[in-house]
Amino acid sequence: MNQHFGQHFLQIPGPSAVPDRVLRAISMPVIDHRGPEFADLANMVLAGIKRIFKTESPVLIFPGSGTGAWESAVVNLLAEGDRVLMVETGHFATQWRKLTEKMGIETEFIAGNWRNWADPEQIRARLAADTGHKIKAVMVVHNETSSGVVSPIKAIREAIDSEIHPALLLVDAISSLGSLNYEHDAWGADVTVTCSQKGLMLPPGLAFVALSPRAIEQARTGGSRRSYWDWAEMIELNRTGFFPYTPATNLLYGLKEAIALLEEEGLANVFARHDRLAAAARAAVRSWGLEILCENEAAHSSVLTAVVMPEGHDSDMFRRHVLAKYNLSLGQGLTRLKGKIFRIGHLGQCNELVLMGTLSGIEMGLRDLQVPHVSRGVSAAMSCL
Amino acid sequence: MNQHFGQHFLQIPGPSAVPDRVLRAISMPVIDHRGPEFADLANMVLAGIKRIFKTESPVLIFPGSGTGAWESAVVNLLAEGDRVLMVETGHFATQWRKLTEKMGIETEFIAGNWRNWADPEQIRARLAADTGHKIKAVMVVHNETSSGVVSPIKAIREAIDSEIHPALLLVDAISSLGSLNYEHDAWGADVTVTCSQKGLMLPPGLAFVALSPRAIEQARTGGSRRSYWDWAEMIELNRTGFFPYTPATNLLYGLKEAIALLEEEGLANVFARHDRLAAAARAAVRSWGLEILCENEAAHSSVLTAVVMPEGHDSDMFRRHVLAKYNLSLGQGLTRLKGKIFRIGHLGQCNELVLMGTLSGIEMGLRDLQVPHVSRGVSAAMSCL
Amino acid sequence: MNQHFGQHFLQIPGPSAVPDRVLRAISMPVIDHRGPEFADLANMVLAGIKRIFKTESPVLIFPGSGTGAWESAVVNLLAEGDRVLMVETGHFATQWRKLTEKMGIETEFIAGNWRNWADPEQIRARLAADTGHKIKAVMVVHNETSSGVVSPIKAIREAIDSEIHPALLLVDAISSLGSLNYEHDAWGADVTVTCSQKGLMLPPGLAFVALSPRAIEQARTGGSRRSYWDWAEMIELNRTGFFPYTPATNLLYGLKEAIALLEEEGLANVFARHDRLAAAARAAVRSWGLEILCENEAAHSSVLTAVVMPEGHDSDMFRRHVLAKYNLSLGQGLTRLKGKIFRIGHLGQCNELVLMGTLSGIEMGLRDLQVPHVSRGVSAAMSCL
Amino acid sequence: MNQHFGQHFLQIPGPSAVPDRVLRAISMPVIDHRGPEFADLANMVLAGIKRIFKTESPVLIFPGSGTGAWESAVVNLLAEGDRVLMVETGHFATQWRKLTEKMGIETEFIAGNWRNWADPEQIRARLAADTGHKIKAVMVVHNETSSGVVSPIKAIREAIDSEIHPALLLVDAISSLGSLNYEHDAWGADVTVTCSQKGLMLPPGLAFVALSPRAIEQARTGGSRRSYWDWAEMIELNRTGFFPYTPATNLLYGLKEAIALLEEEGLANVFARHDRLAAAARAAVRSWGLEILCENEAAHSSVLTAVVMPEGHDSDMFRRHVLAKYNLSLGQGLTRLKGKIFRIGHLGQCNELVLMGTLSGIEMGLRDLQVPHVSRGVSAAMSCL
Repeated sequence: MNQHFGQHFLQIPGPSAVPDRVLRAISMPVIDHRGPEFADLANMVLAGIKRIFKTESPVLIFPGSGTGAWESAVVNLLAEGDRVLMVETGHFATQWRKLTEKMGIETEFIAGNWRNWADPEQIRARLAADTGHKIKAVMVVHNETSSGVVSPIKAIREAIDSEIHPALLLVDAISSLGSLNYEHDAWGADVTVTCSQKGLMLPPGLAFVALSPRAIEQARTGGSRRSYWDWAEMIELNRTGFFPYTPATNLLYGLKEAIALLEEEGLANVFARHDRLAAAARAAVRSWGLEILCENEAAHSSVLTAVVMPEGHDSDMFRRHVLAKYNLSLGQGLTRLKGKIFRIGHLGQCNELVLMGTLSGIEMGLRDLQVPHVSRGVSAAMSCL
Repeated sequence: MNQHFGQHFLQIPGPSAVPDRVLRAISMPVIDHRGPEFADLANMVLAGIKRIFKTESPVLIFPGSGTGAWESAVVNLLAEGDRVLMVETGHFATQWRKLTEKMGIETEFIAGNWRNWADPEQIRARLAADTGHKIKAVMVVHNETSSGVVSPIKAIREAIDSEIHPALLLVDAISSLGSLNYEHDAWGADVTVTCSQKGLMLPPGLAFVALSPRAIEQARTGGSRRSYWDWAEMIELNRTGFFPYTPATNLLYGLKEAIALLEEEGLANVFARHDRLAAAARAAVRSWGLEILCENEAAHSSVLTAVVMPEGHDSDMFRRHVLAKYNLSLGQGLTRLKGKIFRIGHLGQCNELVLMGTLSGIEMGLRDLQVPHVSRGVSAAMSCL
Repeated sequence: MNQHFGQHFLQIPGPSAVPDRVLRAISMPVIDHRGPEFADLANMVLAGIKRIFKTESPVLIFPGSGTGAWESAVVNLLAEGDRVLMVETGHFATQWRKLTEKMGIETEFIAGNWRNWADPEQIRARLAADTGHKIKAVMVVHNETSSGVVSPIKAIREAIDSEIHPALLLVDAISSLGSLNYEHDAWGADVTVTCSQKGLMLPPGLAFVALSPRAIEQARTGGSRRSYWDWAEMIELNRTGFFPYTPATNLLYGLKEAIALLEEEGLANVFARHDRLAAAARAAVRSWGLEILCENEAAHSSVLTAVVMPEGHDSDMFRRHVLAKYNLSLGQGLTRLKGKIFRIGHLGQCNELVLMGTLSGIEMGLRDLQVPHVSRGVSAAMSCL
Repeated sequence: MNQHFGQHFLQIPGPSAVPDRVLRAISMPVIDHRGPEFADLANMVLAGIKRIFKTESPVLIFPGSGTGAWESAVVNLLAEGDRVLMVETGHFATQWRKLTEKMGIETEFIAGNWRNWADPEQIRARLAADTGHKIKAVMVVHNETSSGVVSPIKAIREAIDSEIHPALLLVDAISSLGSLNYEHDAWGADVTVTCSQKGLMLPPGLAFVALSPRAIEQARTGGSRRSYWDWAEMIELNRTGFFPYTPATNLLYGLKEAIALLEEEGLANVFARHDRLAAAARAAVRSWGLEILCENEAAHSSVLTAVVMPEGHDSDMFRRHVLAKYNLSLGQGLTRLKGKIFRIGHLGQCNELVLMGTLSGIEMGLRDLQVPHVSRGVSAAMSCL
């Protein structure tokens, strides 16, 4: 039994494997965060990350996790007693809701089975009923990392607008930015949050918040008590390349390199690669005769594929086996899906042969543990590549 | 003129220069933060950091900055309308106060001239007057990074206790932990906060909060609305080596290495080294005929030395000059001290020859810009080493 | 078409992919090669490399390549006009012969078709005929990197001994050491040479020469004019942990780490892993219906598999295609095999999923270029793992 | 006593401290040395290194040390029984002579006291006497690393030419290239050798040989038996970006970065910096009242300063002390100078403050060990900067 020798296949849906160039970048010596060299770095990454979000408005970078970015979106715009509309796309939508409620916000949660997207029509209907405009924001997850389901942000914006409803649109693009096409400005998001360790191919430790002019305006007078996650001072200081408190300099080195990697490949090519690999992964799953968790053909994620474990087989035992024998990390099923699914990450710097190694490890693992399947998934995936 | 060739001397009072071993550690590939290898890492650093804080109680690690650690201390223990007692030791005490007020807490601020410590007797007197025990916490900065003044934490605890006052003691050890002796348990701190980029010799990006059993107990029922900075779930999950949201894995690699470095040298030796270097730095300043900002002989910091620029000379112009000509970064004067002082960091991995290079750069810079001084500081420093 | 995005699969038979731990080790700052810290390092790696060669005699480490190690073996033991017996196992045996002849040594070359091993019986017969003992050395390649054929060193030693012939046994273990079992002492080799970039998993830049007491004795009085590659002074200085000229310090850092990696896994496990992966690679080749170059079942290499390209298809065009489309580097056919074969490296830190990614890339490449084959190689390989 | 904590000051005259950018470059993953990406790298460094040597002719790069480069110069041009003229400038000239004699070459050695340069007039006189043109080459060390003495290469060439003598000029620029101005073509050198770990700021492991058209021509038909160090095949394969045997790829990554560093600063600025620092070092030595080994004012080296230890004091004991107490490595006295001198390296990426740290360490060490001196060296050095 291979006890973790050689290359590890980190195929969870984030943190994704960090490219060598990025790892080397983050190991450069730290510099004075109030000096001229730092300002050059900051200006470069603050401009670059806007191109990745496809926005002309400020994008803020906090030392933190995606959870922190969620909190930043909430506390800058919403106050105790405010009401928001959220959609239960899966574990992370549920977590975001919990955080929002902890901050004293009332949430209306459109129930879901964790296998489908946020339905624009449901959102529209709910807003239509909100004649008093009590709903201050619609909060949705673009790519639900727990289930591999993508929600149609642009259509959701159109649904809001079709009702001439003033609700802000807050989007979690944590596991999609840099992997799936995302257009903060064109799609009309007011806040889009992400973090460093998914499509941006960095280690965890940075939280990002993209804003709209309207969001900035509303934050000026509204929101909850806040300090660390506050936007105003950050926007102000970022203008000259500085931050209100010590930024995570070495991760910013990595961000500069990661943006370069994305732009050298070309964002359109990056997205096409993710689509190609995801199609191959789904072909494998179907050929094995296993079920894909996402039940909406239009909503399949190119970031990850969640696979339903056949009845009577525990997905965590399966994951432990492929880790121990093949040095392969797969994502677990979270909360209500625990033991029932495993998730294949094919994001970030994943390419054809890393995917094929991954799928081979899964197919061999299914065989080893005698999970009922047809051993043709790997072949099927190759047919897509 | 040397345009930043060769080794940079990063002698600001944090971020401090990161040791090679730490830089290499943080460039290791990221791993699954829900896997067994991660749990081993987390258990190791969670145990190790307690030894550095000299505590038996939990120390929490957040992706964030020292500012975040401040906020964590505030929101877990204090609620809108609560009152706290703070002391104006300098810029950072002032900033912490601002943050605290932003969260709705009333602060009583014992005024200071930024050149002296938090006086235990003043604190005692104020608490004695607070017969209604409205003051929920005393919040002080151990090593005021803006001024190079160290406050006597143990004596402050004794002052609180002498009045049999129930106020919690919240301490900012941001720039002291790992450089100056600090004893969280023995000194009776309820919360001690720090960050990664000072005495811990890591890049910025981690916030640390050490707790007391009493703090944990009070947080259970009190405090403000919070989510990211909340202690309860963190304590719970840390028990098994995991975190409520994705931790900054690569910085944790570095933390493991930094703890090893500190313990290989021995904490007592680390502190003695800081004291020795600081004494040499002060000897240099005095020999130059310049004034040290700290006016209390018992309160001099072994982390940094703040130097008052002679009348008619701008410290920022001086700093720009030594950066451009000698590749030396010194700390600037903050807010009310802007242009009036420069700060010499001699913390972290600083050693004798790095200090001597630094002091030489300053002495040459004073000469270059014709700042009145006696050119004997470097010689005087050598006499102390 | 994927223009080299994401992880590169370096599956040539050396340089092999360098483990992260080794890459980080070689990036540590250089130290004084005449200081005490260096001596500790040198003593550690000089002792460790003996365990890998399985010898009690000195192993010498030169800044250089495997070619340099060949030259060192020749010039320390042989002089102009001496005669040696070599066997044409492939390109590298031929190259070693050329080098030997350039140094003025007469070589007798047992002809071969580059598809089979060095036959002990042929060697025995030739030595039996050498009644005047003009043959000073038998020089063979353990693992012929150009063809994937392993020769039986122990049996060759026995063949020499069975004739009571005084010829020394010089072995090229360049691509086998650290991947295939090799026993310098037990098998009776007099000189074994290797380099850093194959089974030792280092970047290229170090040449190694393992000696026998008899080789050391003969070199004392014999051999050709030499200086850089001389053994005597090296052996002498190595005793105290130093070298006659500046060693390649940073590669020695890497060597220390590589030895640790091999011993953590356990040499027997390392060899078993290579055997397992090689069996899977051969199963794939056979299932594709392609021919393995090595025609002797007992001589298959666990380091690499050389595959004969079907008539009418150019292996270099194939290699260029899989590099451009799948970011996969395969080894080329050398000299007489140019365009006719490609070589799959499965040595060093290669593991199951890296191999499966590699074989998938080959199978897709065969399909893309319409090379006649049966698309079952990947499946067949999985059956072996 | 500081047991090697914090930054090490590696101030020996090579290996010099390696810049961070170079250390990170050499930790990039190894690539196929026969692939297109490698050819790009090779073409870039082969062109770049010519600019550093200031030559239009080929510069060859071998895995090896400077000793190997010496051997390459000898065996490609000289044969057993040939005679050469060398000058005893110090330990390294003596070592090169030994190597040359080991290869069967007769050497005529102009005696020296290791404190002065190679005198062009002496060389001229000797060549004038060589009416039969038996002397095939004049071999001199540009910067004698053992003594800190620089010889006038251009004047030596002129001396040879003034006698219309056909001797080739072979120059050891091992410790000067990249630190002192050196003009291979303009000065008329036929072979110039260097290595990676001095002015090129790389770790040890590469040997360089710059050639003249005449040297290439003579090597075609002359020289000794050779293979590894042979020029012809190297020149041939280098044309397309490849090498006759596996090159030290990761050091070539570093070379690319080192050339970039030198050219970003500008070679003229690099040389001026070395001159400035060396003048300061000499001022320090003189102010201490210690003797500089080099007794020729015109021949002082800007790479290192060799300092004579006062009678009754052992320089190696001194060096051990400053290493143990100040983490400072100084160069030792070699062979006949053992215990009598120490050498201060101020080459490579050394800058003002690193030099001042170094000189401070020496001044404190002299004090600690009660070596007679005047404690004004550090001050004197600052006056020069």
